[in-house]
Amino acid sequence: MKVCFVGIGLMNGSLSLDIQQRYPDAVIHGISRKEATLDKALSLGLIHEKGSLVELSDADWVFVSIPVEAIAKLLPQILDGIGEDTTVIDFGSTKTAICSAVANHPKRNQFLAAHPIAGTEYSGPEAAALDLYKGKTIMLCESKKTRKDILERAVLLFEELKMTIRYMDAVAHDKHIAYVSHLSHITSFMLGKTVLEKETDEQNIFDMAGSGFASTVRLAKSSPEMWIPIFAQNRVNVLETLEEFISNLNEFKDKLQAEEFDALLADMKNINTIKSILDRK
Amino acid sequence: MKVCFVGIGLMNGSLSLDIQQRYPDAVIHGISRKEATLDKALSLGLIHEKGSLVELSDADWVFVSIPVEAIAKLLPQILDGIGEDTTVIDFGSTKTAICSAVANHPKRNQFLAAHPIAGTEYSGPEAAALDLYKGKTIMLCESKKTRKDILERAVLLFEELKMTIRYMDAVAHDKHIAYVSHLSHITSFMLGKTVLEKETDEQNIFDMAGSGFASTVRLAKSSPEMWIPIFAQNRVNVLETLEEFISNLNEFKDKLQAEEFDALLADMKNINTIKSILDRK
Repeated sequence: MKVCFVGIGLMNGSLSLDIQQRYPDAVIHGISRKEATLDKALSLGLIHEKGSLVELSDADWVFVSIPVEAIAKLLPQILDGIGEDTTVIDFGSTKTAICSAVANHPKRNQFLAAHPIAGTEYSGPEAAALDLYKGKTIMLCESKKTRKDILERAVLLFEELKMTIRYMDAVAHDKHIAYVSHLSHITSFMLGKTVLEKETDEQNIFDMAGSGFASTVRLAKSSPEMWIPIFAQNRVNVLETLEEFISNLNEFKDKLQAEEFDALLADMKNINTIKSILDRK
Repeated sequence: MKVCFVGIGLMNGSLSLDIQQRYPDAVIHGISRKEATLDKALSLGLIHEKGSLVELSDADWVFVSIPVEAIAKLLPQILDGIGEDTTVIDFGSTKTAICSAVANHPKRNQFLAAHPIAGTEYSGPEAAALDLYKGKTIMLCESKKTRKDILERAVLLFEELKMTIRYMDAVAHDKHIAYVSHLSHITSFMLGKTVLEKETDEQNIFDMAGSGFASTVRLAKSSPEMWIPIFAQNRVNVLETLEEFISNLNEFKDKLQAEEFDALLADMKNINTIKSILDRK
């Protein structure tokens, strides 16, 4: 079994560890623009050899986990070079632009658009971890455009990784994910910015920041190179979520300014219901 | 050693477990407006008996961990009833209003204003946990107004609990804590609100929400009854942080709208520096 990873950071690196554990015979090729990344991946055992985009014709699997604008750009070229039975899967956090980029490609049916709801705020090969995907959800988009045997093979692999599979329209995916993921990243970055601007004395952040702050600002450690393309591709949805979030903040501010504490209390009690949704997860 | 806990939820309940472990002879009295809370605390072993505010004269310690507006209101009455050697400590998240409430009290010097940077999003006696305070910072405010022997006794206890002690002016405390704690709670609640309003189908939140969303929205599970008084007492500082946060969000939105991705990338890279502050903690 030949597996080619295009991009070999947190996502593909973790997948490689999972695959190597389950399929000891798998030969893993890593493809990256950065030689240093490949060297690192080799030394960490995430890949067996350095590969390139011209040797995909005998690959069983090609996984593409690079910034989303690069996925959309590279995917047609990847499909050009694959063999009859190669399965190509991307792990991008947006799905509409990526699906559009290959909508009319002759090998569209060998491609599966996927988004695993898994990850951490860290990136690069060093961040790779076994079982990152275990128990997590993976969203599959436009799966009817994927050849039946290819889809089945992919589903089997994700089940092997103990993932929960959900099917969704690419447009719906991008709309929902803006609310439950992209907005969180922006609020985290802006919270980090607000505090950094104000707390010029880092010692104060260090002393007074508790687990609550750490939790809300954690995503501000995420890779900007990964996230800017996501915001760019999902710009319209992200702008909508931002407008609603800012409007809610302004409403809170106005009520606090006017000392309307009963109204604030009622609002917050209502928002508390999110507990039952989060905790059943 | 007689210890009286005014309020017996997460904060005092956890402290009780720590004290009982270290001082097996301690007799713990619980004081609460709610009979059900006292019953729960008794059954969980957080207190040995139900107490009342009229029996503080022979108490060695009185810890006050109730909503901050109730602390400000009750503290003068508590000080009225204590003995010559009773130490009174509050654990409120705001400090200015509480210190003002007893500024001219004849027993002001038996009171120490404290804020442990510890807690979780859960509340009530069931949330109490051993070692909640271990390794955490405790802010002591206006400590020069506390009698020397009383302050020393308190410091010894906090050191026994393996806490890091920091001294700060009450006004400065309230200003900084608005940025590194109060703002985080508001953004979490408003993020929860924005998503709840949009995602009428809870299944979508359930399926698509990853650890990033859970992390940023976690504080939206916090007790509104505890937090509204904090926002009320620290209203001016909180409004200032909110204005700056909203302004940063609007700036981000405008740049995204205008597709100024280079500027956004530079901003986000700069905010990434918060990593070094958070990770050294």
